[in-house]
Parts: sequence; structure tokens; C-alpha cells
Amino acid sequence: MKMALRACLRTKPGLTGLLSQLSCSGHAAARRAPALVAQRSSSSTSQKIKVDFDQSSGVAVMHMQSPPVNSLSLEFLTDVCIALEKLEMDKSCRGLVVTSSQPKVFSAGLDILDMYGKSPEHCAEFWKAVQEMWLKFYGSNMITIAAVNGSSPAGGCLLSMTCDYRIMADNPRYSIGLNETKLGIVAPFWFKDTMVSTVGHRATEMALQLGLLYSPAEALKIGLVDQLVHEDQVLTTATETMTKWLAIPDHARQLTKSMMRKPTIDKLAANREADVNNFVKFITKDSIQKSLGMYLEMLKRRKA
Amino acid sequence: MKMALRACLRTKPGLTGLLSQLSCSGHAAARRAPALVAQRSSSSTSQKIKVDFDQSSGVAVMHMQSPPVNSLSLEFLTDVCIALEKLEMDKSCRGLVVTSSQPKVFSAGLDILDMYGKSPEHCAEFWKAVQEMWLKFYGSNMITIAAVNGSSPAGGCLLSMTCDYRIMADNPRYSIGLNETKLGIVAPFWFKDTMVSTVGHRATEMALQLGLLYSPAEALKIGLVDQLVHEDQVLTTATETMTKWLAIPDHARQLTKSMMRKPTIDKLAANREADVNNFVKFITKDSIQKSLGMYLEMLKRRKA
Amino acid sequence: MKMALRACLRTKPGLTGLLSQLSCSGHAAARRAPALVAQRSSSSTSQKIKVDFDQSSGVAVMHMQSPPVNSLSLEFLTDVCIALEKLEMDKSCRGLVVTSSQPKVFSAGLDILDMYGKSPEHCAEFWKAVQEMWLKFYGSNMITIAAVNGSSPAGGCLLSMTCDYRIMADNPRYSIGLNETKLGIVAPFWFKDTMVSTVGHRATEMALQLGLLYSPAEALKIGLVDQLVHEDQVLTTATETMTKWLAIPDHARQLTKSMMRKPTIDKLAANREADVNNFVKFITKDSIQKSLGMYLEMLKRRKA
Repeated sequence: MKMALRACLRTKPGLTGLLSQLSCSGHAAARRAPALVAQRSSSSTSQKIKVDFDQSSGVAVMHMQSPPVNSLSLEFLTDVCIALEKLEMDKSCRGLVVTSSQPKVFSAGLDILDMYGKSPEHCAEFWKAVQEMWLKFYGSNMITIAAVNGSSPAGGCLLSMTCDYRIMADNPRYSIGLNETKLGIVAPFWFKDTMVSTVGHRATEMALQLGLLYSPAEALKIGLVDQLVHEDQVLTTATETMTKWLAIPDHARQLTKSMMRKPTIDKLAANREADVNNFVKFITKDSIQKSLGMYLEMLKRRKA
Repeated sequence: MKMALRACLRTKPGLTGLLSQLSCSGHAAARRAPALVAQRSSSSTSQKIKVDFDQSSGVAVMHMQSPPVNSLSLEFLTDVCIALEKLEMDKSCRGLVVTSSQPKVFSAGLDILDMYGKSPEHCAEFWKAVQEMWLKFYGSNMITIAAVNGSSPAGGCLLSMTCDYRIMADNPRYSIGLNETKLGIVAPFWFKDTMVSTVGHRATEMALQLGLLYSPAEALKIGLVDQLVHEDQVLTTATETMTKWLAIPDHARQLTKSMMRKPTIDKLAANREADVNNFVKFITKDSIQKSLGMYLEMLKRRKA
Repeated sequence: MKMALRACLRTKPGLTGLLSQLSCSGHAAARRAPALVAQRSSSSTSQKIKVDFDQSSGVAVMHMQSPPVNSLSLEFLTDVCIALEKLEMDKSCRGLVVTSSQPKVFSAGLDILDMYGKSPEHCAEFWKAVQEMWLKFYGSNMITIAAVNGSSPAGGCLLSMTCDYRIMADNPRYSIGLNETKLGIVAPFWFKDTMVSTVGHRATEMALQLGLLYSPAEALKIGLVDQLVHEDQVLTTATETMTKWLAIPDHARQLTKSMMRKPTIDKLAANREADVNNFVKFITKDSIQKSLGMYLEMLKRRKA
């Protein structure tokens, strides 16, 4: 596991760079962070998600705790979506902080094991779950803040970009970015659209073509994250920031958020099936499967 | 009046923040700045607008002098549009500087009294005038420079964003921004489009969701204004800047401006009626009227 | 020729500013930089283009050597496009560096002599060649890096903006920008689209309305170029940068590049004829021809 974790730290370009791309969840040990349940708070916990909801403030904190690196597997994505949906339907929940209970990593991105050696049907199911996660988070009526307390490559970066605000740990060993091209994979149009809306067209063109992973300082500079704080302060800063957002009347804020994001959401919503088909056709290609296989082998060798 | 004026200064977040949102014109005293008429210049003055046109340079200066805070009421918007139209039709007028004769404020934005307790018909008339102002300024063939010599929240910010260049007084007590959400109101899509074209998608998303008012320094940083100068220098700097713009052949500049702005203008032009209906339906809601009423009450209490 | 060269250096605003706009190729002397042919490299040379292709790295360097200032004439554009097409079809060529063999200038932009006193038919042919150049470069499957080792106004700026990365000589006497309006000409929509994708909407609006030429430092600040290095290091830095881009799998990079640029390319591809007609109608106007004539006269007077 140590090797897989190391894969999420920022590394020099080249082969090791690939390691931060995708991740493999392995046999997820039932490691779980102790639940810190505040007064007047409820805490609901699936195997891999712990949600602390503070009724008095109307703010929930979603802790991702899927060892070792919060890989976004089909199973984990499903858990995440169910947890989000519950909060979304609870009118007393106005804000959501997303963070990680795993050391050094926010989320290592999409789980390679759901794309490698799997049937087209499985790949399609997996991709629908990725779409679902994006649609639910990007379109959430809640105030969403990403407390990025570790590395956040690929799908991890996407998840953080769906939020309304991003606070990252100021540790130069961490990195964030959509690095898909490094493994020979292409970020789909809605990953691209989300990034363009966050950092603009030119920065996205560079980032996606080169599969760039940014240090926290670089990410702040291009606007990929909004604020850097010391590692220990990420979650508390998220909570403080939330207070500022909670001061805004919900209805006006929600309509405004929808005005900004609806065109991008509608684009995927109108093309989900075609997008799934594109993904399955691409990912099941021999050449791509071979790349994924080599990547997995490399992960194993580093682990040994 | 003093209290209402104070409402336009930059204040701490919270209730007082709301005060900078919209404004109420009250019984406009016939206060008027003395007209400084240069040689070979003509000066035409409605009650609330004074226009100095220098034939030799081809540049007009429009002084907004609607006490206390240049609230954009139906009446004032009509005056502004008539003045603009006159200049637009005068082929010898190539450039327009817009500024305020009121102390400490450029314009406090849309006049709340034209939205509160009014018939749907009145609200519709008012909104058409707001549209008209935006369409005329954003699509003006003249070079337009905003000399922002005071606070400029909401509609005041919109007016300045329609110009080709924005110079703001470097006084940290002033602020500028589209802060509609703070009062539970939503900036319409063409306010949003104008801001996206000025500061980009991400900065707009943050600004509109949070209803942010920026200090001059912050506004410069995100590109909401182009230049800061000392309060005393705003108007002269605008005139100097105009000289640079006048060096460009009009026809090429106008075609270029139109190429940049026409898609955004066409979007509203094609949807004016629907946009009016949306506004009227929204603003006449009980909940929104109640918010406006509470806001007016608060203004009165502060005055007393 | 010396005067024409000087026209490409950065000058004060006003009449001399016009000089950097367009250029006139004159009777192109057969001046040619000596071919430095590396081992295992092939070098193909038209009269005005020298291409060094290093098979081992898969990188070609295109030296523009059309004296005095690499004006983009119909003839030169044709040469450039033929050279690019050859490289594009050679699957072993993965990257292309574009640079100038002429001192102090990358390219002075579109050749005024192909627009002045010419038949509508000639102007149409010329404009089709400009379109072709843009379509081929902006849509190239190769990694393209502009080694901007001199001034790059108007069409020269456009050429550099079609590349994936721009490295400019850090010499404050050089400038870069789309300065068409200064001569009374309007940059067409696809020039505008390319610039918006590079520096964003607001910077483009200012740049195009004012016909701004930026110093290298200013160009870096707004993102018009990506990196500044000493004049002597432009080409070697381009080669080093290329290595980083070559590390990315071609197929994923190409699909990503296409995803970013296809909408903009499709817009021109679907409107080429109308765009040609617009250009011909505009450029053959008496008023525009008169401007071009006065500009040419001025060039001659400065030369004498």
C-alpha cells in the first residue's frame, strides 16, 4: 500500500509521473478514521464514507475513507452519490465540505481496476457512475467546499473542481491536475468544460495537452484552487469559509449557481449515452488496455 | 440623506453589506454641481444629467447628478438614455466619459423604489429602461470610459462594465461589484454575461454567488477595473486615456467592438420580453417584496 | 530595406506605430541563412523556407527566411503551407519549431503588396492562403512551438498564436500583437477567436480595439507568450521544451488538442467563402485602399 500511496505524491516528470494518474484500490482494508461527532450532530457512515452533519449550522462534512487512496471505484462512487443525494434531499443541510481521511491524498482519481480487463458492460456502468458523481456535485444546490488535504490527480481534481470553493494544503509534495494524457487517456469534454470554467481556455489547453500536475503554489497561481493553508488548517478553514457562504440567501445563490453552470451540465445531460459509448469504445481498445496493463505492472513492481 | 450616502461606502459583511446593494433616491434635492463649460464646448443639462461636450476634441463628459447617490430610477435611466442617444447621433462626438457629481458614489445601482410596492406594469417599464441603458451603453459606437469616482455597487457596477475602460478612485472606502444575491435578488443573464466578458467565468461565479463587493485594489487585481488613480485624478486620467483611444480610426474600432460584443447584445435583444417577464414575476413575489421592505425599513432606521 | 526592418521594431504610438502593422516584401533578395544540417537530419529548402528535420528526435525546425521581414505574401504563405503539409504527412515528424532567420523580426505580418492595388480576384487568392495557413497550423497534429526571436505584429502574432507554446526573446525593442485597427483594418473573427482562446475575452477586447503591440514583458503578463528567454536562447529553449511535450503519448495529446480547438476551426471551415468575400469587399474599398497607399508612401519616405 505504501507504494500506491507514494504514487500520489508529486513526482518528477516521466514514468513516475504516470503513477499519479490513476490508482488501484486493491483489497481495501477496513481502515477508518475515528468519527469525531460534535454535539447536536448526526454521523452516518457507509464503509467508505463518513458524513458528519451539524444540524445547528446546516453544514455536513463528507470524509472519504476508502483506503489506501480514495480511488473512485464503481463501488465508492456509488457510495459517494448516495451520501450526496441524502444530504441534497435534507432541506436543513445547506453546505457540504468534502475532504479525505486518508493521509497525503484527497483522491487518487478513477480506479484503474474498473477499466482494465473488464467487460464493456462493466466499463459502461463505471462511466455512468463517474458522470453521475459529476452531475450531482457540479449541480448541487448546496454550498460545496473541497478541503483538499492531499494530492488530487485526475478524477480527484475533477471532484474538487465541481465544488464552489477549493482550499488546498500548502504542502509542496502534493499535486493537483487532470493528468490523463500522460497515460494515453483523454479527458472527456465535460472534464475539459469544468476546467475551462475554472482556469480559462489557455491554461486548460496547456494542462490537458501536457497532463500537468500542479504544486499547490502553481495551482493557486492559475486559479485551480482558491486558497492555500497549512495542512492542519484545511478543514477548519473550510468551515470558516462556509460561514461566509451561509450568509447569502440560499434561493438567490442557488439560482445564480445554476445560471453559471447549467449550460455545461445540460451538455453532458443531453449526451450521456454517446459519452458512455465513446468511453467504452476507447478504453476497451487493445492499445489502451495494454497501456493500462503496463501501468498496473509498474505499480506492482514498485510495491514489491 | 447622509445615512443613505453612507450606505454606499464599503462596509463590513452582514446586514450593513446589504445597504450598498440598492438605493432609494428619496426626494431628489435639486443639488447640482456648477457647470464648468470650456471654450468651444456646449453644455446640455437635464435635471439629473449634465453633459459637457468639447467639439474640438470630440469628447463628451456625462456627469450624473441625481442626489443623493445617483440611484438608477426609471426617471434617471430615461434621462441617461436620452442624453446618450443625442451624443450617439452627433457624428462629431467620438468619445464619452461617464462620471458622478455626487460625493463618494459613482452610482448606487437600481432604485429600489421602482421595484417595491409597484404594479407589475411599473416594474416592467422600469426593467425595460434598465435593459435599454445596457443595450445603448454596451453597444455604443463611441469610445466609453467610466470615471468611477466613488462606490459602484450592483447597477452602478453594471454601468461601468458597459464602458470600454474603467478608471477607479484609489480609495479603500469605495467598493464595486454585482452584489445582488446579498439581498436575495439574482443578477440576470446579461449582467452575468457582461461580467464574464470582463473578469472571466470563475471570478464571476464567485462574485455573483457571494454578491462580492471589491475594494479598488481587489477590483484591479481581478480586472473589474483597468486602472486606479488618486481620487482627484480620476476625471483627468479619463481624458488623457481618451486621447489614446481617439488615435484609433473610428470605423475599424467600431467594427472591432461590435465583433466582440454583438453575440452578448443579440442574446438580450432576442429575449427582451421574456427577460422582462422573468424580472416582474420574480420581483413581485411576496418573499422578495418582503425582503425589499425590510431593507427599506433598515435604511430608514439608519437615517433616523 | 533597413527602414522596413525598423518598422518592425517597437515604436511610440502614432504614425510610426502604423509601421509595425503590415509590411511590404519588396524585391526579395535571395538572402538565405546557411543551412546547419545535423547528422541524421534532412534539410529541405524552398527559396524562403528552410526546414531542418531531425529524424532521431522527430522534430523539425522551420526557418522563415523571406527578406527582409518575413512578410506573409501569397507566395510565402504558399511555401509555408507546402512545407507544413509535407511534415504533417510524415508520420515520423512529431514536433515543429517555427522561427525566423531574419534579424529582429519573427514575421512582420500580412504583405500589404498583396492587398494594395490588386484585383478582387488576387485579394481573394491571398486571403484564402491566409486562411489556409491558419487552418493548417491551428489544427496541426504535431506539437508546434513558436520561437519568436523578433517582433511579431499582426499576421506574425497570429502565426505564433496558432502554436501550442510561445517562447519570445526578452528584448524590449521587440513587440507582439494584433495591431490591425491602427491602420483602419479589422481583425477577422478567427483572429479574434484565436486571441480570446489565448488571453481571454477582456484582454482581447482591449488589444483589438486599440491595436495594441505588447513588449515581451507585457505579452508574458497577459499570457500572449508563455516564456521569455535571452535572444540567444530562444531556439535552444524551444528544443528543450519540445522534449517535455514529446513525452506525452501522441494520440491522447492530439485528441485533446482537437477537443480544445475544433469548435474554433469548424467556425472558419464552415464560413471560408463568406469570410473571403467580406475581406475582399472591405479591402478593395476606396477609403481602405487610400489608407494602405498612404502607409506605403510613408514606408518609402522613411526608406529614402
